[in-house]
Order: sequence, then C-alpha cells, then structure tokens
Amino acid sequence: MTANNAFTALMAHMHEAVALSQISGLLGWDQETTMARGSANQRAEWQSALQATLHAKRTDPKVGEWLAAIDPADLEPVEAANIRVISREFERQSRVPTDLAREIARVTSAAQGEWAEARAAGDFAAFQGTLAKVVDLRRQEAAALADGGDLYDALLGEYEPGMRAAELDQLFAGLRRGLVDLRERIGESRVEIPDLKGKFSQDQQMLIARELADAFGYDWKRGRLDLAVHPFSSGSGDDVRITTRVAEQDPFNCFYSTIHEVGHAVYEQNIAPRHGLTVLGTGASMGIHESQSRIFENQLGRSRAFTGFLFRRMQAVFGDFGMADAETFYQMVNKLRRGYIRTEADEVQYNLHVLLRYDLERSLMDGSLDVADLQDAWNQRFEQDFGFAVDSVQNGVLQDVHWPVGLIGYFPTYTLGNIYAGELYAALRADQPDLDTDLAKGDTTHAVAWLKQKIHVHGGAFEPIELIQNAVGHAPSEAPLLSYITQKFSDIYQL
Amino acid sequence: MTANNAFTALMAHMHEAVALSQISGLLGWDQETTMARGSANQRAEWQSALQATLHAKRTDPKVGEWLAAIDPADLEPVEAANIRVISREFERQSRVPTDLAREIARVTSAAQGEWAEARAAGDFAAFQGTLAKVVDLRRQEAAALADGGDLYDALLGEYEPGMRAAELDQLFAGLRRGLVDLRERIGESRVEIPDLKGKFSQDQQMLIARELADAFGYDWKRGRLDLAVHPFSSGSGDDVRITTRVAEQDPFNCFYSTIHEVGHAVYEQNIAPRHGLTVLGTGASMGIHESQSRIFENQLGRSRAFTGFLFRRMQAVFGDFGMADAETFYQMVNKLRRGYIRTEADEVQYNLHVLLRYDLERSLMDGSLDVADLQDAWNQRFEQDFGFAVDSVQNGVLQDVHWPVGLIGYFPTYTLGNIYAGELYAALRADQPDLDTDLAKGDTTHAVAWLKQKIHVHGGAFEPIELIQNAVGHAPSEAPLLSYITQKFSDIYQL
Repeated sequence: MTANNAFTALMAHMHEAVALSQISGLLGWDQETTMARGSANQRAEWQSALQATLHAKRTDPKVGEWLAAIDPADLEPVEAANIRVISREFERQSRVPTDLAREIARVTSAAQGEWAEARAAGDFAAFQGTLAKVVDLRRQEAAALADGGDLYDALLGEYEPGMRAAELDQLFAGLRRGLVDLRERIGESRVEIPDLKGKFSQDQQMLIARELADAFGYDWKRGRLDLAVHPFSSGSGDDVRITTRVAEQDPFNCFYSTIHEVGHAVYEQNIAPRHGLTVLGTGASMGIHESQSRIFENQLGRSRAFTGFLFRRMQAVFGDFGMADAETFYQMVNKLRRGYIRTEADEVQYNLHVLLRYDLERSLMDGSLDVADLQDAWNQRFEQDFGFAVDSVQNGVLQDVHWPVGLIGYFPTYTLGNIYAGELYAALRADQPDLDTDLAKGDTTHAVAWLKQKIHVHGGAFEPIELIQNAVGHAPSEAPLLSYITQKFSDIYQL
Repeated sequence: MTANNAFTALMAHMHEAVALSQISGLLGWDQETTMARGSANQRAEWQSALQATLHAKRTDPKVGEWLAAIDPADLEPVEAANIRVISREFERQSRVPTDLAREIARVTSAAQGEWAEARAAGDFAAFQGTLAKVVDLRRQEAAALADGGDLYDALLGEYEPGMRAAELDQLFAGLRRGLVDLRERIGESRVEIPDLKGKFSQDQQMLIARELADAFGYDWKRGRLDLAVHPFSSGSGDDVRITTRVAEQDPFNCFYSTIHEVGHAVYEQNIAPRHGLTVLGTGASMGIHESQSRIFENQLGRSRAFTGFLFRRMQAVFGDFGMADAETFYQMVNKLRRGYIRTEADEVQYNLHVLLRYDLERSLMDGSLDVADLQDAWNQRFEQDFGFAVDSVQNGVLQDVHWPVGLIGYFPTYTLGNIYAGELYAALRADQPDLDTDLAKGDTTHAVAWLKQKIHVHGGAFEPIELIQNAVGHAPSEAPLLSYITQKFSDIYQL
C-alpha cells in the first residue's frame, strides 16, 4: 500500500461515513418537523442501526492502517487538515470501549424521558439517581479519552477541539464579574421601556421570518424553513434546513430564532464546495458555530440600525402596532427582564446562565460536587448572579435537556461563541465603517461576505482558535464582547 | 458457531440492513415531496453511500457462513420464511459481479436524464443507443442470475418471486383477447356518458382525499399525506407515507390516486408487528402489492355502491357540480376514453397497455426484437389492440420511465396485480354478501379486515402464489378479473 493509495482509500471511506452522518441529521430533522408520532419507535431503530453502522465505519481497523501509511508532511494543507480531523476522531472513538459507549447510549436515551417526567412533576429527587449514573458514565468515558489528562478537557474536546478548561476559566472570570456588575447597575436605572402588546398572526410572522432569512443571505435553493417546537438548523453543504416557532403574542421569538438559525445555516451553506462530503465540510466547532448564530442574531440583528429596518417592515405588515418610534422599538427588542430560562435571556444575562452551568459541571466532573447537592448549588449560585431566587425546579436545575442526555462539556461553547462573536464584530466594524448604513437598509451583504471569507468557507480546515486568530489578528479575549455589551446597554439604560 | 447463534446473529445483521433500506426509502420520499432542488447532487451522493453500505451488508461473507450453519428444518415457519427470503436475496446479490452492478447503476442513472431529454424532444433515435446499452446490461445481469435458466424469468423473479414467464403467458393470453373484444364492443355502444365540468379547488379536493384515506382505513398516527408530481406510497411498518396530486379540472385524479396509494399503504401498515424490521416486514411481491392498490381503487372505489357515497360527499363539499344523479356519476367515473397513456387508462384498457409492454420486453430479452425496431413494434401493436394509431413518441414508446431505468420484468406485475385483485374480489364478495351495503355508506371496514387477515398481516412470509391460493382456495386464473370487467362494463354500456 503506497501513501497515495492509502490517502485515496481513506477519503473514499470517510466520504461514505460523512454521507451516513448527514443522513442521520436528516432523520432528526424529519422527526422534529414531519414524522407522525406513531413512527417514533421505528425511527429510534433506524437511528440506532445507522449509528452502529457509522461507528463500525469510523473505527474500522483499516482506517488505522491507512492513517499509519500516510505521512502528513507529504500532503497539501487541506489534505493534512482532513487527516488531522480523521485521526482525532479515530483515536477518540477507538479509546472508548464499545460496551461503555453502548451503555452511555442506552442510559442517556432512557434518561431523556425520565428527565421530562421529573421536570413535569417538579421533582429533582426522582431524577437524581439517573443523573448521577449519567455523570458517572461520562466520567468513565472521559477517563478513557483523557489518557491521564484532565477529565473535563477530554469531554470539552469533543465540542471544541483544542480548547482546555484552564483557558476557559481565564476567559470567563472577567466576563462574569463584568456582567453581574452591569446587570446590577441596569436594575437601578430609571429608564422605563414599554412591552409589546397585541397579537400577530402566524402567516404574517412567517412572511417576515422569510424576509429576515433573505436579508441574512439564506439560500432557499438549498434549504427550507419549517415550524418546530424548538428552533434548530440542520444539515451541511447543499441541504441545510432551518426551523422556527410562532407565538402570537411574541413575534420577536419567531424573528430572532429565525435569524439565529440562519446564522448557523448560512455558515454551513457557505463552506467551500471542495470540503463537501469530507470531515471538513461542517463548522469548525460548536463555539465557532454559535459565534455565527449569535453575531447574526445580536450584534447585527439587535443593533439599532437593523431594528430600524425591522420596525418599518413590521409597520408595513401589521400596520400601527402600538410602538411610538424606532428608538422605542430598539429599546424594547433589547429590554432586560427577570427570567429563569437561559434560552429566553437577553444579551446581558445569557452568559451568566451559561457560566453557572459551566462551573457546576466542572465541579461534577472533578468530584467536588455531588449530584445530590446539585439543586442547592444551582439555586445558591443563581441568586448570587441574578439577584433573585429560583422559584421552581423547572425554572432551575431541570430546565435544560443537556445533562440528562449526557452533554457535559458542551455548555461553555455557548459563551465561547459569544466571545468569538465579540472579537469578530469588533474586527468587522473596523473593516466596514459603513456597516450601520447597510444594516439600516436591512442589507447584510457586506457583513456576511466578510464572515464568509474569514470563517465560513474554511469549514473545519482550521482549529477554532487558529480560525479566530487568522480572522482578527490576535488570540481571542472576552474584552470586546464585554465592552460591546456594556456600551450598548449603558446607552439604552442611560447608565 | 451453533445454529442458534448463527440464526440470532443473522437476524441482528438483517435488522440493520432492513433499517438502512427503509431509511433509503425515506430519503426518496423527502426528495419527491420536501427537498429543495439545489440539494439533488448531495442527495444522490447520500443514496449512493447508503446503497454501497447496504450492498456490503447484504453480501457480507458472514451472511453466507450463518446461512450455511442454519438448518431450516429446525426452524419455526416464520423463522424459515426469513431464511428463505434472506437466502434468495443473498444468492441473487452474490451472483451479480460487482463491476456489472456498478455499471448498471451508472448507466441507468444517466439514462433517466437522457430519456427525459429525448422524450421532451420527441426523438426516439436519440435515446435508442442508451436503451440498447441498458437492455444489454440487463441481459448480462440476467445471464449471471439465471445460471443457465430463462433470462426473463431471472429478472421477473426480482419483482415477483417464484413466478415464471411461461405461467404469465397462460394467464395473459385469454385476458388480452377478452379485453380487446370488450373494447371493440364498447366502441359500438350507443350509450353516451357525459364528462365532468368545472373547477374544483385544491383545499376542497384534499379535504375529500383525506376523507377517502380515512374511509379505506389509513392510519394517520403512522403516516401522512403530501403532494407530489407522481403519486406514490413509501415506507413500511410504522412510517408509511402517501402522496397524491391535484388538478383543478380533474378531482378524480386526486381521489383515485389517493385510494390507490392508500391500498399500498394500508397493506404495509397492516403487516403483523412481529415482521417489523425483518425481511418479511414488507409486501410479498410487486404483484401482490398492486392487487391491494387496485382492489381498493377499482373493485371497491369505482363500484356503483362506493361512487354513490363519493357523489354525496362531493355534493356536500362542492354543492351542485352539474351531475344529474348518482348513476350518471358512476358511469362518468368509469367512462372509457381513447388514450395513449397507461397511467390514465380505465379498467378495460389498462391491462392492454401492460401486455403490450410485457410482450415487447420479452422479445427484447430473448433477442427476437432489436431496440432499433422497438418503436415500430410498439406502434403496430398499439393500433392492433387499441384501434387507433400512436400520434407521437411521447405518447408511445417513450412514455414510461421503466425501461430507461432498467426495469425489465416489472411491467407484468401490474397486470398480475389486477388478476390477483380479481380473484380476491370474487372471494370477498362470496364471503361478504352485504359488501355493497357497507360501500354505499363509505364503509370499507369489513372488506379491509378481510384483506388484512388474508393478505396484509402475512407480509412476505408466503410466496405470492401461495398467499393467493391460501386466500381464495385455488391457483389464480385471469377468469374472475375478465368476468368482473366484462360484467361491469357490459352493464354500463348496455352491451
């Protein structure tokens, strides 16, 4: 076997694996948007068969032989990047014993239902045993992956390759202090911001949602927009689908969910075709992905300039909807509210939700916190950072599905995404002084083209940190995000 | 390896293969109903990766080892039926050289596009070379499969296990004579049947289509109805989806396409759960499948009794739509028209279309007809059986996609389905003397329950002929179908 033959055979093998993995994504989309409820058990069997096939392909001993026969030094950069990602995944998958992987799949699959029941019943104790089991299994998996290194880093690496918790601690510490301080000062502000009133029909909301997807560069020829209970984006390359939801009294939920998912989707749609059906043909990491959805949604979509455009579109579609002027509209879109739920939080408080989860899951993994004490630890930390007490376990430790399904090491990528978005936005503004003029017209063409060139086209060809460094010229820090949020909300709340 | 272990391992292996094959079906459904046009190339890559994976699973040498270790005599009947079907497929797939299978996939995939172009241009000569190549490749495949036996039988066996062309010839000869004779006599009838006039909105047509699906026992909890260019049913077990189409001036196209597809779908939905995700968990053959769609559509759906119900439903939804009474409505639904297109043909002429194709493809396979002479042979035969000349190649030899995509041996299963439906309908009427009373109320419960018990629940556990024999008590003949059609249309046309 020559190195050349090995590389060709490995790429053909991975082409099939990537295709099967994308098919699994479509099955997930179909399940959330289209499938009849009575098909659920059969669908679970399909996914299980597909995952087993995929696992066998990814851990095929031939992959190890091909990798051993290839010298990365002989490869072009993109070829070498393929080998880097394939090797990393092959090692990860090979390190976890098959029995453990199967046990994790089994327990987390059942845990999701148990969590939903415990949540409905408002009973953390009923779920505590299962959650302890999930944490224990993930610790075992982390030990297998870490090979003597840090357990948390081993899990984090699945979602954010190359990132370590020690680096996160540094990025997050100043951010938490700054955001708590800002939240407290806003709480003392005398500025009164009205709330939106009235009802907004589904058809009209969806009309505007489609215009927003257009405005942010979504390519309808290679995707579609549907309704789902929880908005998501799904797919890669030439088939990237988005979903949103509609509540009659809260059109912003629909609009900003759409823009957020379009951020994820346009990233995937813009990846260079040469990466299609290779392991590089998707976003570089969860953090980079979230940076795109968040910069679309917040820095661009919730800017004064863009909300001016949205205000006029809403007037055109809904007539007078009780909003005095564009400035009031802008304030209302960004208004801070007391709330328990991460996914509904404003830009100031969102990352406080994430950092709470990050610190707690770190403690679960290093053994300093027991699942039995998790609810108390959550409630105590929440009051500390948000200034009021959790009123129910549904609004507290049982609100997210992540831990029940075994996602530990995933939460910090949300805030990392915001930090990356902060860096990218500062660089974008420096490169495009007329950005606001475009946004005021609902035109994101130049901004999205900049993101496409700096981030999107590369897919997974660079490590996340490298990608950001190449884009902005330095290692990422939390400072631009904190400074952007502080300025924006100091202005709105006249601090 | 014990026989027991071998059986268990083989069933687990096939469970995955069946799941992957069902997933491929869902990808097809999505492509026809949901997918954006720009996703087509990526979808082709997905299907190709899935088919390659599936082929590798089905021809895995382990399957041969497991089969060799199992003695069917030790098995329960359903276990033995599983082994019978698995062995048959394993042998078929193993006999065809991989290079030939790949070449057939490549040529037929490209041929579909070339056929569509030649058809649009009305130019058979432009497609003749490709079609000759397809026929030649399928002859090579048949030779590999036949192992010295009849070439046509080798292909036919893929769609109708156990059936042979010599048997078809016997069943079809009398049918053709009888139908041509009937068509000629109807042509001389003085009975004048009016046509439907007016426009019927999509929403109202779909309302009735859903009621018809209900009336024929379609289970919405495990399926859905969508629009597609060509109506089809897709899936097995707990996820069986149907599609229909709507033309404003021809609501019967929508209604009877729906009933036809519901026939296919209810068959799949009614298969015993124990066959789920095994090779027996789908219809026994193409002929048996078509028997269910056709008995739903014609013997039940186009009966005087059921059209009486449909007439009242249409009056309720559309108001007075210019139809004098239920009897005129019944005649109109069954009216004979001059037409070139198989899929639009009435019960009298439909099988003449199929038999024409059957005889021509038999001659192509045995070498007595050259592709270069196919158009002339088609036109000559058409005029002979239908009494008028083909006016264009789109209405002639280029009308169906079957031959371009390599489907040779498939056409006769349409008529075989009608013959089976004729047998089943005669037995059903004998068992249920009050059938018309039910149908007049739009109630098919007892009829469908009878078909469920005789045919549906068994899935692929019996060979097609065995299934029909068990249901009706004798080997199938064309006589009941011919007698049903002759009686029905002699009555309508007062012959």
